[in-house]
Amino acid sequence: MAGTDAAKAAAAVDPARQWDRLMAMAALGGFTDAEGHQGVNRACLTPLDREARRLLLSWAVPLGLQPSVDALGNLFLRHEGTEPGAAPVLTGSHMDTQPNGGRFDGIWGVVAALEAVQALRSAGHRTRRPIEIVAWTNEEGGRFAPGCMGSMAYAGHRPADAWDVTLDPDGISFGDELREHLAAEADLPRRPLGVAGQAPHAYLEAHIEQGPRLEAEGRDIGIVTGIQGSRWFVVELAGESAHAGTAPLSLRRDAVQDMVRAVAALGRLMDDPTDVLRFTVGRIEVSPNTSNSVADRVRFTVDFRHPSKQVLLAKGDAIEATVHEAVRDCGVTVTERFHALPVEFDRMVTGAVERAAAAEGLTGLRMPSGAFHDAQFMVPICPTGMLFVPCRRGVSHNPAEHSEPEQLAHGARVLARVLLELAAG
Amino acid sequence: MAGTDAAKAAAAVDPARQWDRLMAMAALGGFTDAEGHQGVNRACLTPLDREARRLLLSWAVPLGLQPSVDALGNLFLRHEGTEPGAAPVLTGSHMDTQPNGGRFDGIWGVVAALEAVQALRSAGHRTRRPIEIVAWTNEEGGRFAPGCMGSMAYAGHRPADAWDVTLDPDGISFGDELREHLAAEADLPRRPLGVAGQAPHAYLEAHIEQGPRLEAEGRDIGIVTGIQGSRWFVVELAGESAHAGTAPLSLRRDAVQDMVRAVAALGRLMDDPTDVLRFTVGRIEVSPNTSNSVADRVRFTVDFRHPSKQVLLAKGDAIEATVHEAVRDCGVTVTERFHALPVEFDRMVTGAVERAAAAEGLTGLRMPSGAFHDAQFMVPICPTGMLFVPCRRGVSHNPAEHSEPEQLAHGARVLARVLLELAAG
Repeated sequence: MAGTDAAKAAAAVDPARQWDRLMAMAALGGFTDAEGHQGVNRACLTPLDREARRLLLSWAVPLGLQPSVDALGNLFLRHEGTEPGAAPVLTGSHMDTQPNGGRFDGIWGVVAALEAVQALRSAGHRTRRPIEIVAWTNEEGGRFAPGCMGSMAYAGHRPADAWDVTLDPDGISFGDELREHLAAEADLPRRPLGVAGQAPHAYLEAHIEQGPRLEAEGRDIGIVTGIQGSRWFVVELAGESAHAGTAPLSLRRDAVQDMVRAVAALGRLMDDPTDVLRFTVGRIEVSPNTSNSVADRVRFTVDFRHPSKQVLLAKGDAIEATVHEAVRDCGVTVTERFHALPVEFDRMVTGAVERAAAAEGLTGLRMPSGAFHDAQFMVPICPTGMLFVPCRRGVSHNPAEHSEPEQLAHGARVLARVLLELAAG
Repeated sequence: MAGTDAAKAAAAVDPARQWDRLMAMAALGGFTDAEGHQGVNRACLTPLDREARRLLLSWAVPLGLQPSVDALGNLFLRHEGTEPGAAPVLTGSHMDTQPNGGRFDGIWGVVAALEAVQALRSAGHRTRRPIEIVAWTNEEGGRFAPGCMGSMAYAGHRPADAWDVTLDPDGISFGDELREHLAAEADLPRRPLGVAGQAPHAYLEAHIEQGPRLEAEGRDIGIVTGIQGSRWFVVELAGESAHAGTAPLSLRRDAVQDMVRAVAALGRLMDDPTDVLRFTVGRIEVSPNTSNSVADRVRFTVDFRHPSKQVLLAKGDAIEATVHEAVRDCGVTVTERFHALPVEFDRMVTGAVERAAAAEGLTGLRMPSGAFHDAQFMVPICPTGMLFVPCRRGVSHNPAEHSEPEQLAHGARVLARVLLELAAG
């Protein structure tokens, strides 16, 4: 009977409706880039963000879902359970984008949650547990750094006022914008921030993969086993400027040459034949950065990620010494800017995703997430998991980001099945 | 008698007067940097540049020197000879600075020429040949690229209108600024551009070394044997952006990693145990230059110089293949932006500098110039040479640029002796 129920719910997912909603959302902040791709630039706590939330409400409220907003602006839509006092199943993602973002990152997890819940309801299901759809505030961190503020505050990881004085690039504070945002949504019921004495029964986030593995391996659904750990460093090299035509190389303290030595040495440290480790030098700033002057300063970033805590600690701790050893002539400063250990998702959730994919006749791939997600902060408070759908060539944070309507429909059907299972538990 | 005459002329050099004039010039565009050094920012064809020229005229005209300006704005001050029809001895340098420039580069060569000629005159000398002091327009190229426009046009290396549409960073054209400049100096006599049928008998330019050799080797005067050759390249690497957390390293086309491979390989190509070769990667631009994105594009410059034409051609021609071989994943474009073969100065001039230094009891060092100078473009039209004085730690193009008054006095005394010898010849 459960199997039949779940099949009915999954069958009630409407791929065209989901796609049309995504495209309607993409129009809010939409732009066309030089290659003709449709991008989205919709920063958090902006009028565009509020338009997107109103659009979501215009679909959700007529279905009978109950909206509420907490002190961080996290927006909830509640599908009531037959036992309203039972801990709810929480599902969702975020609605903000990167400045040069795509149409699927984040927003699909919210639209898919609505699609799945609408499918359950239209198939006539009444779940034992409530299901709450959530749109977290400021996951991207593109306007106010860091990202994941909404989920961090919800999970009690940071206090609600932690970012009140955080400024955007125009000098506007997060606190001021949040107040304006909440005032603009004063018509919506407010709810206490956080779990308020009752942690969710589970949290499940649907997201595009933002990487190439599912597409490359021809799989439909990523069964996300956890989020790899990250350590971010800034390396600063202090040499001395000199005239490119006159200064003998033996007397130079050339920060570019030492940067090359350091990055090459880090590449050897980070060598990983299994290709699981992620090592990126993405940002380099050179001073004075003129063709005929020896550089007196170089600053570069190191982004290092790995799903294994042991590897993350061992190799990450070796970065500073590796740079010191490689550099020949410059002063060296290595600063760690961010340190997040790997998290592992809960078997209850990953197992449900795996079963649901199989029941839909879809191929699954157990995989860690390379990117951060709000789900990371749910791990300490409730059983948590994620499901991924493929995205074309792994491109994300870019207008070229793309998933096919049918791939997204697969994801919504799996999500509907998992929600049904978890809300029954 | 000649020896006594020359000694009198050299003795008439006034170190305090020369220094005070340099400091008065340094006030025009002067600023103090974060370390407390006095820098100068005086771009060519600006009101500040014209102020500096008027200041120079205020010293030169009362001495009886005849000013004139050509179509490129090159300013001449003529000391008449006893044979006014004889080919003149030309000496000078430039008065413009780099944006973050010092108080000596260029301007000292003009002020020293005035000091030397004033010393000759005050010692009662009448030279057979005229001596012309020149201040070349736009040597630095800091506002309008390339530099050395005034000397290139004078020498017939490029036509007078070659840079009319060249724009400065504010979008103002060289042609428009030059017209305004000439109009502002309409009271000064105009002279035809170039040698006008009579090439100079010789050209001699005094300059700070802009390198550390004289100071390091404890020598007073650089007897400059020529200017090393230069080849400038831009290397562009085209990869693909990707998410730092998700994209496997095996699938990346990381432009930063390929830049590191290319620069390391070029370092091996350019290895020179004799330490004569100059190889500089001074400018690196990374796109999108964010810490959590794999770089899709890197553009870097190569500045390669050597006094030997053979080495310059052989190693310079190998740069493109070396980069192609080193790069693993990116598309490569190597563009040569500038190519100047080494020039050798004339024995007549270098010999005169060597003799004058010895007569002053100063220690000389025969050396090539690592930097460009206007003298480079005089080589094809007349016997040419340069003399250098030490500058502290070789620092130039920087407010920390410094030479001692006594070092500059040595230079002016040697210059006076050489001018006397050449103007008698």
